[in-house]
Amino acid sequence: MGLEVFKFGGSSLRSLDDMEIMADKIARYRQKGIQVVAVVSAMHGSTDRLIDLARCVSAGRHCREVDRLLSTGEQQSVALLAMALERKGIKAMSLSGSEAGIRGKGRYGDGRITAVDPRPVARLLDEGKVPIVAGFQAESANRDVITLGRGGSDLSAVALAAALEAEVCSFLKDVPGIYSADPRIVGDARKLPRISYGECMEMAAAGAKVIQARSVEMAARYEVPLFVAGTFSEEEGTWIMREDVCESLIVRSIASDRNVAKVAVLGVPDVPGIAARLFGALSEEGVGAEMIIQSVMRGQVNDIAFLVKKEFLGEAIDICRDIVKEIGAQGVAFDTEIGKVTVIGAGMANHPEVPSRMFSNLAAEGINIDMISSTSMSITCVVASSDIEKAVKSLHEEFIGGEGSL
Amino acid sequence: MGLEVFKFGGSSLRSLDDMEIMADKIARYRQKGIQVVAVVSAMHGSTDRLIDLARCVSAGRHCREVDRLLSTGEQQSVALLAMALERKGIKAMSLSGSEAGIRGKGRYGDGRITAVDPRPVARLLDEGKVPIVAGFQAESANRDVITLGRGGSDLSAVALAAALEAEVCSFLKDVPGIYSADPRIVGDARKLPRISYGECMEMAAAGAKVIQARSVEMAARYEVPLFVAGTFSEEEGTWIMREDVCESLIVRSIASDRNVAKVAVLGVPDVPGIAARLFGALSEEGVGAEMIIQSVMRGQVNDIAFLVKKEFLGEAIDICRDIVKEIGAQGVAFDTEIGKVTVIGAGMANHPEVPSRMFSNLAAEGINIDMISSTSMSITCVVASSDIEKAVKSLHEEFIGGEGSL
Repeated sequence: MGLEVFKFGGSSLRSLDDMEIMADKIARYRQKGIQVVAVVSAMHGSTDRLIDLARCVSAGRHCREVDRLLSTGEQQSVALLAMALERKGIKAMSLSGSEAGIRGKGRYGDGRITAVDPRPVARLLDEGKVPIVAGFQAESANRDVITLGRGGSDLSAVALAAALEAEVCSFLKDVPGIYSADPRIVGDARKLPRISYGECMEMAAAGAKVIQARSVEMAARYEVPLFVAGTFSEEEGTWIMREDVCESLIVRSIASDRNVAKVAVLGVPDVPGIAARLFGALSEEGVGAEMIIQSVMRGQVNDIAFLVKKEFLGEAIDICRDIVKEIGAQGVAFDTEIGKVTVIGAGMANHPEVPSRMFSNLAAEGINIDMISSTSMSITCVVASSDIEKAVKSLHEEFIGGEGSL
Repeated sequence: MGLEVFKFGGSSLRSLDDMEIMADKIARYRQKGIQVVAVVSAMHGSTDRLIDLARCVSAGRHCREVDRLLSTGEQQSVALLAMALERKGIKAMSLSGSEAGIRGKGRYGDGRITAVDPRPVARLLDEGKVPIVAGFQAESANRDVITLGRGGSDLSAVALAAALEAEVCSFLKDVPGIYSADPRIVGDARKLPRISYGECMEMAAAGAKVIQARSVEMAARYEVPLFVAGTFSEEEGTWIMREDVCESLIVRSIASDRNVAKVAVLGVPDVPGIAARLFGALSEEGVGAEMIIQSVMRGQVNDIAFLVKKEFLGEAIDICRDIVKEIGAQGVAFDTEIGKVTVIGAGMANHPEVPSRMFSNLAAEGINIDMISSTSMSITCVVASSDIEKAVKSLHEEFIGGEGSL
């Protein structure tokens, strides 16, 4: 009997009617003889509301109590889904992350999963019950609740699927799959039948709302096939799997992200260890920096620039100002009117012409490139945020639209 | 160093500002050198909202999942209160009922506390922290959450106070103490400085919004002094303690309750065991019956009448109809336009004139008495609900008002 782990996201949980739809989906799978484990997020908006409450009462930083508060959102949705199933005559049982054997460590609000004991969930499956597991939470070594950060429910689902050796971990979303570009920007964006783990990670990093990058990484490590489909759709979705079983396309998709800001520390003395100090301080405060560019000119002061997510901009500036004083740099500058556009494809490594085609295409559109970074399967350009939409459309046309291949 | 258990009810938790007030109260006690354990209910209205959700999704009956859903209300409020304390620089830690060592058994939604392991809370006190315990919930033998029914947070507080041998268990409410009658009905109702456990139980049974009767019973058994005071008031509240330390008043208070309905099973054949069958069936479904009156006329069919809380009326009628069919009785009648008025006082036992004074007083007001029941420290009359207010005023004037004593 096949086993599938389903992850229901908050965007598919906007009302109690949605609960019914989830329950129906699970019922249909059970009728087909498939064993189901459901991993559930909090109802849409619930986590944000709880975060607002916590901000009002506490200093706002993540701590034991904030994590315990946030974890109640998932505890509510799992109990409700279990009730909805029971009403349909399907035996179900809700479990907290801890009860489902999910162990974690790390800072409150940013936990990592360290291990999953599959036995509690396997036991319920043996009893013919549908285990409904609260996503986003794990049990820490001192038996406290620790939450897994934004998108953490994805991680719960993949970790459980790996531990249970499930045949697939399916993500039910408010969109019916993963597209070659955001369909709201590119009208003829195509739904992709299949992408590789690596491409999916690149897409997540490039700002596409797919699956949390850490979760895809874990799926790749344990070779758990992932599947993204629409909760409210019967269309075939998108498989995420090993590269060698994906059709090799040079460029699979174009992603963009406007939720970034550029920060620059100006006039940094050229002495060793300053970058380490700066990015160490940022990471200690949980501020992720990307596209780090340092322009070194022998013997001269120089600038260090990088991107942060917009919500971390204030914190990043504060940290940089402290460092500027400490090291005698000239100052801090920032720019919020920028965005990233990324071309992604596993086949790119063997096609060195892709970067130059990308730059030429943007130049022909009159789009100025501010920063560039690349990996073996992606190239990202930072451009003015007002140019993002034009860039995505033009690059989709160049690499994917029309014939869809080079 | 003295130890007090504080119970904060939902009616004192209407907003995050109220959280601040609780935190300030706790801070002031700590400054006086008093160790504090807080037992907290869900925020005002939260439990009702969760019950509504559960009703929409499930068949509405209490089950494992409903209890788990409801318990999140308290888990949110304890986390928030702990944050509010931490922000004031007071070390605090929130605990679920289970983590606080509160064990229970019984049906979901109607659990009883079987034991309290005081060690987890005592350990936090030793570490100088304020333990903030989620009321209304216990851990069942199979390690599930079980909720303790309406008013269950009172029980959590008293049970913890008993296990910790606290000097007092204080209830912070939206009223500054217990009164000789509902001040909204009787303008010159007096705040009582002291009442006995027995009187308090009678008041709870008579419908006064004091402390849950089971909790007072437990306090009496373990001799935990109780104190009721206003969250938002600096007035001295009401002590609830052993009878021999209370000033003996013949009549301490007048209580009333309109949330009752009368049910009568008509034409019951006079054979043994029928009452047992009827009230057994009611109690099995969790429907409490009170003021049971059976009018036996030798060799004749007769009627059995009793009161239930209004919310159980539908269920009670269904159960009675089944029994009527089974035993060949004539039918079921009910009346929702009634209420109880009760005169309470520990000194009553030695004053046999109280009942006749009560009946004369009501008669003089033109109030018809439908049913009567009495205990050693209370007399209750059932009257038309439209007469309740008049009856309370008149009886307060008769027994308490003016000089305040017989």
